[in-house]
Amino acid sequence: MSLSEFDLIDRYFRACGAKRADVRVGIGDDAAILDCPAGMELVAAVDSLVAGVHFPHGSAPASIGHRALAVNLSDLAAMGARPAWALLALTLPQADESWLSEFAAGFAALARAHDLALVGGDTTSGPLCVTVQVLGHVPRSAALLRSGGRAGDALFVSGTPGDAAAGLAIEQGRLAAANDAAAYLRERFLYPAPRVALGECLRRYASACIDVSDGLLGDAAKLGRASGCGVEITYGEVPVSQELARTVGEERARELALTGGDDYELCFSVRPAQVARLLAELPPQRWGYARIGSLRGAPGADVLRDGAVMSFSHSGYDHFKTPT
Amino acid sequence: MSLSEFDLIDRYFRACGAKRADVRVGIGDDAAILDCPAGMELVAAVDSLVAGVHFPHGSAPASIGHRALAVNLSDLAAMGARPAWALLALTLPQADESWLSEFAAGFAALARAHDLALVGGDTTSGPLCVTVQVLGHVPRSAALLRSGGRAGDALFVSGTPGDAAAGLAIEQGRLAAANDAAAYLRERFLYPAPRVALGECLRRYASACIDVSDGLLGDAAKLGRASGCGVEITYGEVPVSQELARTVGEERARELALTGGDDYELCFSVRPAQVARLLAELPPQRWGYARIGSLRGAPGADVLRDGAVMSFSHSGYDHFKTPT
Repeated sequence: MSLSEFDLIDRYFRACGAKRADVRVGIGDDAAILDCPAGMELVAAVDSLVAGVHFPHGSAPASIGHRALAVNLSDLAAMGARPAWALLALTLPQADESWLSEFAAGFAALARAHDLALVGGDTTSGPLCVTVQVLGHVPRSAALLRSGGRAGDALFVSGTPGDAAAGLAIEQGRLAAANDAAAYLRERFLYPAPRVALGECLRRYASACIDVSDGLLGDAAKLGRASGCGVEITYGEVPVSQELARTVGEERARELALTGGDDYELCFSVRPAQVARLLAELPPQRWGYARIGSLRGAPGADVLRDGAVMSFSHSGYDHFKTPT
Repeated sequence: MSLSEFDLIDRYFRACGAKRADVRVGIGDDAAILDCPAGMELVAAVDSLVAGVHFPHGSAPASIGHRALAVNLSDLAAMGARPAWALLALTLPQADESWLSEFAAGFAALARAHDLALVGGDTTSGPLCVTVQVLGHVPRSAALLRSGGRAGDALFVSGTPGDAAAGLAIEQGRLAAANDAAAYLRERFLYPAPRVALGECLRRYASACIDVSDGLLGDAAKLGRASGCGVEITYGEVPVSQELARTVGEERARELALTGGDDYELCFSVRPAQVARLLAELPPQRWGYARIGSLRGAPGADVLRDGAVMSFSHSGYDHFKTPT
């Protein structure tokens, strides 16, 4: 291989993403220099994608670039923050130009869509691993936390969770689906759309918010715990896509919606007095979210079906838990 | 393994590093919320350490934790920035508690020494890889860039480069040394001291600055290139430690100082008119730096010995360059 690391970084990442006036020094020096807007707090998140863990070996490089950024934008969305800058640490087994070009294109398209500039990076050789760190802004004291919920708050989720878990299963040949459903579900895994605009709007309505990445039930339970509450989800209210229901049946679809991973949707709570205003000002059919239950005083997270508590074997993805 | 990822993160990283009043929300939510001081610019850097590439497999976990932070602090030092916050993305083959405890201790000790708070993290399973992203502050328009040098500027380097390359060779059993020298050189590789205080002081004197991580000659050449200049280094002025000279001889010591990696020292240029003030106000023997040459109009980077240009086969470490 003749292309040096530095040339590679230059070629594919120097002009990756949006151009922003608040980037005083971007890629190319020892560190980036950035202007923080007055009156705003800085919001920072980091997430890694590892080959064979977060995506199958041999995945489309554009999807890996998209997802590495999307999972981080989803964290900012959950705080109600507006994205601004990202740094990328890329570990690659070899410096394959066509791989890099597609990866950078996938990353850049999503970055531009959110007016985000790539301001720093590090490329090293090793097993494929992508770590992105995003920085964004939120007006002072306006961020959505997991801990703001109270018993009695209504609980919502955006989108149709479960699609991505089915899309991954199709991608891995573990699940078969009709052509159009397969295309839809695979897209939902490969190119998730982080709910950045919804997160920003929710600052005016939500009491608490969390990013749904490890399974709706487990992540809703985390929101409940952080708020000192429990969570009650009504089985029949859990939204599922037609494509998912057609592919795996209504029952299994709801189960995937509750326990699948990689959704990158938002789960949020709203004070009872704010629910009508939310529904009127952010129409659910336009913004794509649904009420699924509420927060309660008693701890724990239950799914209720016809008044009975359902039991699930797996309430969220945990990288270090031995499968049971 | 019964300990979950979330418990692990909590136990070892929740209170890792300094406590800072400007951290509104640290580890535990979807993202951290941070207060940027008024009148300051934000400085951001990211660097990964990969097992088998940046440190030998089986390295002491405390050293890996220390180095993962140190290499990033060195980037901030090169900008003249003061560190404030870090995010950590840790990919681990298994969640080994004693490994994690030592890693966190190594990271935390260096973080506390620099009043740096760990505000976010992500732990995933996979081949061992540590990515740290640091954030710091610098007064508006005061950052040291690589590009500020001019022909005629004096060129300096901090510390005694080459020690770390020898320390790594000892660590890997490729080099033998007397006990006291071996201990010193290994320490220089395993626990580098980023020159944060020097970097901050240099804002008043230096025209350009770069972090020496890939070999002094190659990194000095990068500073020269970014400044639109060339670099001339006087062989006899390159500082080497007694321990290195005793272990490999004076000749090989200078060669390692020019081409070894992992030094995490600062290479900086100073306008001729500022040199006397620098030497008087930051005494070199106290601050540990030496003049090694100057910037020149003609491009390239040469090492001069008795007026002749020396030739080196390897002017900096490049992860993707085939050895020649």
